[in-house]
Amino acid sequence: MKLRARLLDIKAGGRRIAILDEETASLVGVHSSDRVEITHKNKHLIAIVNLASDFQHNYVGVYQEVSAKLGIRNGEYVEVRPAERPEALNYVQAKIRGERLRKGQVKMIVEEVVERHLSDIEIASFVTALHIHGLSMDEIEALSKAMVETGNTLNLNETPVLDKHSIGGVPGDKTSLLIVPTIAAAGFIIPKTSSRAITSPAGTADRVEVFCPVDLTLEEIRKAVRKTNGCMVWGGALELAPADDIFIQVEYPLAIDPLLLPSIMSKKKAIDATHLVIDIPTGRGAKVKTISGANALAYDFIDLGQRLGIDVQCAVTYGEQPIGRAIGPALEAREALSTIMGNGPADLQEKATSIAGILFEMVGVENGKQTAEKLLKSGKAERKLRQMIEAQGGDPNVKPEDIKLGCKRAEITTEKDGRVLWISNKSLVQIAREAGAPKEKGAGVILKAKLGEQIGKGEPLFEIYAGRSTKLNSALELADRLQPIRLSKKPEERMLMKRVPTRIIQRKAFTPKRQSGRN
Amino acid sequence: MKLRARLLDIKAGGRRIAILDEETASLVGVHSSDRVEITHKNKHLIAIVNLASDFQHNYVGVYQEVSAKLGIRNGEYVEVRPAERPEALNYVQAKIRGERLRKGQVKMIVEEVVERHLSDIEIASFVTALHIHGLSMDEIEALSKAMVETGNTLNLNETPVLDKHSIGGVPGDKTSLLIVPTIAAAGFIIPKTSSRAITSPAGTADRVEVFCPVDLTLEEIRKAVRKTNGCMVWGGALELAPADDIFIQVEYPLAIDPLLLPSIMSKKKAIDATHLVIDIPTGRGAKVKTISGANALAYDFIDLGQRLGIDVQCAVTYGEQPIGRAIGPALEAREALSTIMGNGPADLQEKATSIAGILFEMVGVENGKQTAEKLLKSGKAERKLRQMIEAQGGDPNVKPEDIKLGCKRAEITTEKDGRVLWISNKSLVQIAREAGAPKEKGAGVILKAKLGEQIGKGEPLFEIYAGRSTKLNSALELADRLQPIRLSKKPEERMLMKRVPTRIIQRKAFTPKRQSGRN
Repeated sequence: MKLRARLLDIKAGGRRIAILDEETASLVGVHSSDRVEITHKNKHLIAIVNLASDFQHNYVGVYQEVSAKLGIRNGEYVEVRPAERPEALNYVQAKIRGERLRKGQVKMIVEEVVERHLSDIEIASFVTALHIHGLSMDEIEALSKAMVETGNTLNLNETPVLDKHSIGGVPGDKTSLLIVPTIAAAGFIIPKTSSRAITSPAGTADRVEVFCPVDLTLEEIRKAVRKTNGCMVWGGALELAPADDIFIQVEYPLAIDPLLLPSIMSKKKAIDATHLVIDIPTGRGAKVKTISGANALAYDFIDLGQRLGIDVQCAVTYGEQPIGRAIGPALEAREALSTIMGNGPADLQEKATSIAGILFEMVGVENGKQTAEKLLKSGKAERKLRQMIEAQGGDPNVKPEDIKLGCKRAEITTEKDGRVLWISNKSLVQIAREAGAPKEKGAGVILKAKLGEQIGKGEPLFEIYAGRSTKLNSALELADRLQPIRLSKKPEERMLMKRVPTRIIQRKAFTPKRQSGRN
Repeated sequence: MKLRARLLDIKAGGRRIAILDEETASLVGVHSSDRVEITHKNKHLIAIVNLASDFQHNYVGVYQEVSAKLGIRNGEYVEVRPAERPEALNYVQAKIRGERLRKGQVKMIVEEVVERHLSDIEIASFVTALHIHGLSMDEIEALSKAMVETGNTLNLNETPVLDKHSIGGVPGDKTSLLIVPTIAAAGFIIPKTSSRAITSPAGTADRVEVFCPVDLTLEEIRKAVRKTNGCMVWGGALELAPADDIFIQVEYPLAIDPLLLPSIMSKKKAIDATHLVIDIPTGRGAKVKTISGANALAYDFIDLGQRLGIDVQCAVTYGEQPIGRAIGPALEAREALSTIMGNGPADLQEKATSIAGILFEMVGVENGKQTAEKLLKSGKAERKLRQMIEAQGGDPNVKPEDIKLGCKRAEITTEKDGRVLWISNKSLVQIAREAGAPKEKGAGVILKAKLGEQIGKGEPLFEIYAGRSTKLNSALELADRLQPIRLSKKPEERMLMKRVPTRIIQRKAFTPKRQSGRN
């Protein structure tokens, strides 16, 4: 039926929503969460019905996603009729029942997700079912391919294209800022896209943004790569695998991640990577806790790589403590710059050259690690980093001391001496975020003590940086409560690591039953 | 931080949403789907963050749910700060992992659902996890109780309070319209709340609405019950178990129903029912297919009833074909009225008096079924129905022929004679809905042939009623495709019921491999 359009001049986060009041929905013949086809001057799209009480009769409310696509002006008449239930919903339901989905079925779901024909409710249910029932490698392959096919691709027309990716989970991991220039300095193509932090204190995109803009378009990326062999950009707006971006939005509040493999690998396929190292930080406090767990995941990545035509090797890396000493965008950018200039922590150098070395050997360079080390020591990697910063619009002559840090600073010292036996990644992440990272680029934590180091009484364990004293104080309070770094002279002095449950359960004291004489 | 409020003058279906642009969200320190606390003049509430690109910086957009609750005017400043992640989310995640939830954990989830602190995404994930992992009876009890405690209650201060409920699934089931007046005519209290149709051609509320208003307030219900012992009203706006209403909104697009037991029983507890019969229509084409399945479900209802202090008995009823002959609100209302006036189909009378009879015997009336039959035959039930219609604001003197039916009508006849061996409930539902039911009250289907009846060539199988010829035609087309009623002289003439798969899979014809001389 014909309804008048009422334009809501905001966006609905990409969702295509049609707002109807209950009576108008009845007349159209739809219920909340059903789909309608909206037609306006030969253009049409499918939108999901939201019921709003007190909305005007015979009106359809549309956010900008719908009005822009159909070119509707406020008050114009549009045709609104019930749309067929998308076939993809049958496959969502099959997955809820625990069935294995076939290639075409997976593709249909991904297409309908990208077209915004499935609602948040339906996508959340699908993702939950995937998490509970698990995915077969055939499903993972089909998801990865469908996610690439429904998105943009970089099309550099070059080969080989090298890339690296970390599954994340360890704070302070700024190795990409060393690896990418090292690879590019040797003449190989490495167009690195990264994400911003969601739950961590800094993503690679946040770190790089301290030096230069990271929100390049695909055309700007091609130009930068032609100039410098590489780039370090934010992948979020490139629509390389837009289905993944939508899935991530739904996974985030649920804190589940069933699409880890297709999410990473679809973005690598979309930039045409031919040789890829996946970094799997492993250990207590990392996403993967054991070597055998890391091994199983590694073979999944390798298998999926073969199915997608990407040569994959995995680096299982030590993930029991932060990489280097800096946590937070600016602090990490400064540490990465110092390190590439020859003055940085050994673990960061070791990790970066090891991974770069594997990549080199994958494309036929002998003695990969030594090659990477030479490129670092000779200053070639540093020059390449500066070229890349310039190509992306930053200052190529930036010095570590130019980088602006949070102006409020506090130091946490120890009350007794001992050796560092325990560092909690999770607690450090919380403290750095409480101080303002990643939103405030200068906020974060500098570790003054790392595992195995001997610390004297009164010496600093870590520093907190923040932009405002309120932030600094609440980070300090949190640090006091969480105690992220624990010392002991010998392990046997502190064998009890946790008491379960943490809180003492109150039990009634035992009182013998008495016969009462009265009622 | 202080943000200016921008009021969006529509409702968000009860959801509490705060719209922020990305930069402002960064400054507040929240991500999409996080929660913020909004404070305005000593009032505050928790809202869920939706990011909108192109939204003004330093503004927070709020729908009417938030602005009304906090009394915000457009452009006023409000305080917006990150809110703690609700503890209930931990228990949602525990359920995703397949853990059993404890009473207090279930209660917390239900409270946060009602307070709108959980998003659609989180609720959808919870409901999906419940569907996949199943619920223990302890969890079902906890959910039912929490759903009652977070809603309104009727508080009649009378006992006993009788009630009946059908789990649904069979079209044409207008038995409540006979049972409620029969019970009330005998002097027992029966305050019946029902739902409207969502996926069926008519709910009890839709049928009753043909006679009188059904959207009574709790106070109006108390008044009606005081006057007539009973009522038949729509339960949807009474907030008897508001959590259930929210769960149902999420379950509907997913077509899953893990909360069947708590959903029904919480609403019964909320009206203080003491004696309840649950009707479980059983058979091919019903929700429950087998007697043993019905039995298991029945004992779950009885067990849950004991835990809630409700005396429950279940009626496992024949559900292989529609009840009576009419499907669609007005057609069914007419059939119910005729039947209570002494002129209706035998199956409808039998079912209604059987269930009323069980209720009578539960409260100590001997020979329950005969008692019910006498109340029907004597006209007492009819007089009570007319009193109830009057008490709810309808015409007590309504005659069956007064009821307005769809003005377009078509008859489907058979091309050969035979006995009715097969009726598809599902197909009849689809045809009645295609004709316009339940939105168009006069639309629907009248069966002219029921299971076992002998039909001669050229005689009618069923009629379709619709309000417009376009609707009638598309219902006719669907009827032609679905053929909801199948005839045969003897079963052995038509043993093949379905071919699987329905469509023939194309296979390549076999061609022997040849050696090719050329390349």
